[in-house]
Amino acid sequence: MTSSRIAEQIVLASRPRGEPRPENFKMQQTPLPTLQPGQVLLQTLWLSLDPYMRGHMDDGGSYSPRVQLGEAMKGDTVSRVVESRHADLKVGDIVDGYNFWETFTVSNGTGLRKVDPDVAPISAALGVLGMPGQTAYTGLLNIGRPKEGETLVVAAASGPVGSLVGQIGKLHGCRVVGVAGGAEKCRYVTEELGFDIALDHLDTSLPEQLRCACPDGIDIYFENVGGHVWNAVFPLLNDFARIPVCGLVAHYSDVGPPDGPDRLVAFMRAVLTKRWTVQGFIVSDFDPQIEDFRRDVSAWLQAGKIKYRDDIVEGLANAPMAFIGLLKGRNFGKLLVRVSQ
Amino acid sequence: MTSSRIAEQIVLASRPRGEPRPENFKMQQTPLPTLQPGQVLLQTLWLSLDPYMRGHMDDGGSYSPRVQLGEAMKGDTVSRVVESRHADLKVGDIVDGYNFWETFTVSNGTGLRKVDPDVAPISAALGVLGMPGQTAYTGLLNIGRPKEGETLVVAAASGPVGSLVGQIGKLHGCRVVGVAGGAEKCRYVTEELGFDIALDHLDTSLPEQLRCACPDGIDIYFENVGGHVWNAVFPLLNDFARIPVCGLVAHYSDVGPPDGPDRLVAFMRAVLTKRWTVQGFIVSDFDPQIEDFRRDVSAWLQAGKIKYRDDIVEGLANAPMAFIGLLKGRNFGKLLVRVSQ
Repeated sequence: MTSSRIAEQIVLASRPRGEPRPENFKMQQTPLPTLQPGQVLLQTLWLSLDPYMRGHMDDGGSYSPRVQLGEAMKGDTVSRVVESRHADLKVGDIVDGYNFWETFTVSNGTGLRKVDPDVAPISAALGVLGMPGQTAYTGLLNIGRPKEGETLVVAAASGPVGSLVGQIGKLHGCRVVGVAGGAEKCRYVTEELGFDIALDHLDTSLPEQLRCACPDGIDIYFENVGGHVWNAVFPLLNDFARIPVCGLVAHYSDVGPPDGPDRLVAFMRAVLTKRWTVQGFIVSDFDPQIEDFRRDVSAWLQAGKIKYRDDIVEGLANAPMAFIGLLKGRNFGKLLVRVSQ
Repeated sequence: MTSSRIAEQIVLASRPRGEPRPENFKMQQTPLPTLQPGQVLLQTLWLSLDPYMRGHMDDGGSYSPRVQLGEAMKGDTVSRVVESRHADLKVGDIVDGYNFWETFTVSNGTGLRKVDPDVAPISAALGVLGMPGQTAYTGLLNIGRPKEGETLVVAAASGPVGSLVGQIGKLHGCRVVGVAGGAEKCRYVTEELGFDIALDHLDTSLPEQLRCACPDGIDIYFENVGGHVWNAVFPLLNDFARIPVCGLVAHYSDVGPPDGPDRLVAFMRAVLTKRWTVQGFIVSDFDPQIEDFRRDVSAWLQAGKIKYRDDIVEGLANAPMAFIGLLKGRNFGKLLVRVSQ
């Protein structure tokens, strides 16, 4: 019975100043309400951890709807329907949706989508076939507009967005340079994903290495980190470069603007004289293309043309530390929490 | 005879550091060579002075091909053919082209285009029907993409680019706010050009006035100045704002980056979270649309739907001081030098 069940959930205990710390989160138990007509009870199987969630923790100023203190953290999940009073959802159905960091969720079905376990492992609905995959696909194709022979640079290249951006770039005939943290990720990016070159951003010689890796300059930079990777990319961008801006994870915990000089004027001059296109986006901006995305990426997956990698953390209790590590680039592949089997 | 003629020309005498000064220019006389087969001798009637020419004076780093020391300054002109050994150009033809700050020019015809004096006064080929007009038309329509009911803010609103941007914005149903320097220009912008509001950027309360003038925020900012106008616009830009960047005249004579803090990270965060599109362009990027531009703007002119204003300086000798004033916003309308009658 629903009324006897207890959900575990992770709530926002305090707002971080700078980098999040474990004490900003609290695990608590909450009784589940009795299921009303039209509702389902979902058991969370997989919780996706993504950098944008850092914005939820702040007191406004981000496009992510912030989480109130004491409320459960939000996130994309894959769940199993374990009780149903909903006409279209039956016990045993697997669904994805934008829910919470919790073991059980009561839902009226809004925003839930059935996941077909025959297409790919169900957790792929949170990665290559989900929000990160759609981000990569729509941002690269609409804003990056890759052309045969162009040079594409991708930051966070072993992550769920970057890895797909680079592989789609290769499918479009680009020379693809990935930037990742550490030798193991770099090896994965070239040997498994097929990027032309991978560079380690932990190496202080990144600017020189990037210059050598891009003898014809950079035509597309898929920006999802900012920081010193952007600083290395900036002087190498060609005329008519396109810069889809989908994340700035290096800055999510900044506590104020950096010291000067003020580089904004120099940036705008470069935008002008080199005719760059700089465009920010979030995945929902391109929702009309979601079926194109699912069709193409499913086909590429089934044809073996693209690969992906999950980084799995066991148990909801470990989500906060995993999230803190994510913001420092400690994940290797799509970071998922296995909440229950 | 050609060989007996002398041209007067203005050459780059020294490169400015910061704002150009009169001694950076020198007027000199140069004998004209004998006309060869295929050449024409042009008498310059009108010389256009435009902010981009500031880039010519620097030692590289601008998209404008720089002028070498001792060489004549370059610019768009309207000229009369006074001698011809060219098959398609006859004495008396009026042509425009990218030539020099000089009274007579020998040309092989490359880049010359016949100007029809029946469509508009021939000097319009340097303004509303020329490069500035095409800049306004293509930048606004391709990058700004004005939609009914949106708010468009235009800097340098009484100038040749800004005045047309705002008028085209009105034709597309936008609420148009112009920014100009001084009460007289502001009056012209609203009373003659039909902008909804004009604000004086010389007033220190510009940020507050702009906020009041844009209660629904700003959807399009046509950037052609930078500086404190941009600073006032930045916090008011809406989600999905478009920012065509066609000039940064406030910064053309900067001698180094401004002091900190460094606003570039905050800018990129705004690009991301508000999903702005920032795109630099120069007029030639949209040359395939030149016939659309000429057709539409000619029709609007003839229907009385758009207006323009010239600011005329008499005599080539006065071009340097007029150009120095242009960079300080002292012109009122399209700045033209009447080189000869």
